[in-house]
Amino acid sequence: MSNLFTNKKLGILGGGQLGRMLIQSAIDFNMSVAVLDPDAAAPCSFMADFTVGKLTDYETVLNFGKRCDIITIEIENVNTQALKELVKMGKQVYPQPEVIELIQDKRVQKKFYEEYRIPTAEFILVDSKVEVIKQKDFLPAVNKLGKEGYDGRGVQLLRTEKDLDKAFDAPGLLEKLIDFEKEIAVIVARNENGDIVSYPAVEMVFHPEKNLVEYLFAPASLPGNVLQEADRIARKVIKSLNMTGLLAVEMFVTKDGKVLVNEVAPRPHNSGHQSIEANITSQYEQHLRAIYNLPLGACNTVLPSAMVNLLGEEGHEGVARYQGFEEIAKLPGVHVHLYGKHLTKPFRKMGHVTIVDINVERLKQTTQLVKQTLKVIA
Amino acid sequence: MSNLFTNKKLGILGGGQLGRMLIQSAIDFNMSVAVLDPDAAAPCSFMADFTVGKLTDYETVLNFGKRCDIITIEIENVNTQALKELVKMGKQVYPQPEVIELIQDKRVQKKFYEEYRIPTAEFILVDSKVEVIKQKDFLPAVNKLGKEGYDGRGVQLLRTEKDLDKAFDAPGLLEKLIDFEKEIAVIVARNENGDIVSYPAVEMVFHPEKNLVEYLFAPASLPGNVLQEADRIARKVIKSLNMTGLLAVEMFVTKDGKVLVNEVAPRPHNSGHQSIEANITSQYEQHLRAIYNLPLGACNTVLPSAMVNLLGEEGHEGVARYQGFEEIAKLPGVHVHLYGKHLTKPFRKMGHVTIVDINVERLKQTTQLVKQTLKVIA
Repeated sequence: MSNLFTNKKLGILGGGQLGRMLIQSAIDFNMSVAVLDPDAAAPCSFMADFTVGKLTDYETVLNFGKRCDIITIEIENVNTQALKELVKMGKQVYPQPEVIELIQDKRVQKKFYEEYRIPTAEFILVDSKVEVIKQKDFLPAVNKLGKEGYDGRGVQLLRTEKDLDKAFDAPGLLEKLIDFEKEIAVIVARNENGDIVSYPAVEMVFHPEKNLVEYLFAPASLPGNVLQEADRIARKVIKSLNMTGLLAVEMFVTKDGKVLVNEVAPRPHNSGHQSIEANITSQYEQHLRAIYNLPLGACNTVLPSAMVNLLGEEGHEGVARYQGFEEIAKLPGVHVHLYGKHLTKPFRKMGHVTIVDINVERLKQTTQLVKQTLKVIA
Repeated sequence: MSNLFTNKKLGILGGGQLGRMLIQSAIDFNMSVAVLDPDAAAPCSFMADFTVGKLTDYETVLNFGKRCDIITIEIENVNTQALKELVKMGKQVYPQPEVIELIQDKRVQKKFYEEYRIPTAEFILVDSKVEVIKQKDFLPAVNKLGKEGYDGRGVQLLRTEKDLDKAFDAPGLLEKLIDFEKEIAVIVARNENGDIVSYPAVEMVFHPEKNLVEYLFAPASLPGNVLQEADRIARKVIKSLNMTGLLAVEMFVTKDGKVLVNEVAPRPHNSGHQSIEANITSQYEQHLRAIYNLPLGACNTVLPSAMVNLLGEEGHEGVARYQGFEEIAKLPGVHVHLYGKHLTKPFRKMGHVTIVDINVERLKQTTQLVKQTLKVIA
């Protein structure tokens, strides 16, 4: 018992929408929050003790972290050397800097899965475009950059030899293209005590070109044994990483019912937005519970839900306007979350819409209507 | 369609917990919020464009309102002359200043019920203690101050002649003591278009001495015809007031099944806190939808719920500490909302806890456990 969290200041590296929703949740626990982000107009800029600075700069992260007690991230591309120094100073950094480093490099991540016998797509490490071209017999494959891929960037599909020219000329990997039935995600959380909880799997539908989640349904409609396997794998990953915090584990379900890890993110994640309305404990509160070493919350589904990412329309760049807002606000069970971004550009994540409905067929209809109606234009 | 609400600044008179939860909701709609409150450490002070100033001062309210486009309240005790002036300047003020004035004075409020044939307890207007004493044949009764009663203040129970000495020596009213079965509340909302929605009734249990809601259950367990009558009355009140915004209508259900209006509050209300988790649209989002003339949201219950007010323990005054927090955080379906108040004192509203559970018996057990376990001490 204490005067709760007012005297344990939370520092968040990154001030985007994930930080924004984390702060909305932190308010309920009287947590005092500081945020570091390079963009003075970031979604969190009006909501916290906000510092403008580069997340990849050692001194900037170190000085920011010194003012905090518990430090977390909402984006992986941060200076982990500074985080390690902060740990030495006695700060609590969750996820741990070593986990962030492992996840920053998809090559290291894949080797980790191999070492811990966590099922994942077959892969080959490559250092350059020339090396990719040598592996033409490995096609169809996905060429991924080792570092700095994010939100669909740093991923290139190579179906046939004709595509080889699109390969990255940088250290990365080639991953066998999986002929999957579904892409799913399981979010797990682990606190310092080592308690683990997991959310029911969700199924994601990606944008055909942009490798961004376009919408998702929760919980996923899959056979019980597949769901069990996905849950087992997600729990195994967080345990093997020995990490504290929230971990989103994205997986493929193959046509023959195998479950393979695609990639993981050690923080609140796009695949968990709907937990705000659709689960007993939201992923944001769960992350806070985990890193403050509180008892973890129940993950049960309250209602079936869908989540539509609200992406900037193609061909529109400038001050954002929200076409169709009133039409969709009329629909029962529709929750709009805007991210406070002044400017839109094609495919920028401007917000999301969660739809809850006890009737799954109607839920799918409403989801399509939301996708067709609500547009972010300039 | 517009760039939504960034260019329609919301001004809230009052920076307490109701304002705090209103801001948490306004974030999702990209609303820019300004708050006026006399206390520099008010619950909203870190969350918005915050001004320290007296809510009852004409110039202060006028100058604050000039900077906003839509002005609302989270407490009734505000300067309505300034609000009327702001309306003349073209500002949107919801609830309307005339509605706030009517509700500021319980005498005017009672006469309004009489005029519109809205069922309410029999009453007599009194101007002084001497006048109360003359009405001893009207006992048992409740003596209420006309103005400035709030959170249990300004209400005095007069059971017998022996109690007459406790009567207020100020303009007020005497209301027949109702031998009620239950106290309930129905929250209704109305937008500029005149659309009306209503939440399922909740039943409230008051603190035996302090006239504060101690806890409540939602939805209320009452016969269908009583619930229908309560709903009809609540809708009639907001329509008769011709008001825009959210209105909490507190009612007595008598032992013979009659429904009588006790009092109303034209803003988000303590009896609607649980709507954050337990209803499709929270009362906070609903209030925003109403005053921005958006389509109103669905009010359906998602799960049965209880709400426990977290009041400062008797005998404790000083920096707040939260005893039993971890124990209750373990319980499934328990949501803690703290109000960011640094100092506690006896019966100060420091936070609330919402419990959701599909199983109503277990819900009641958890509610008792929360009440017994979580204590705000100094």
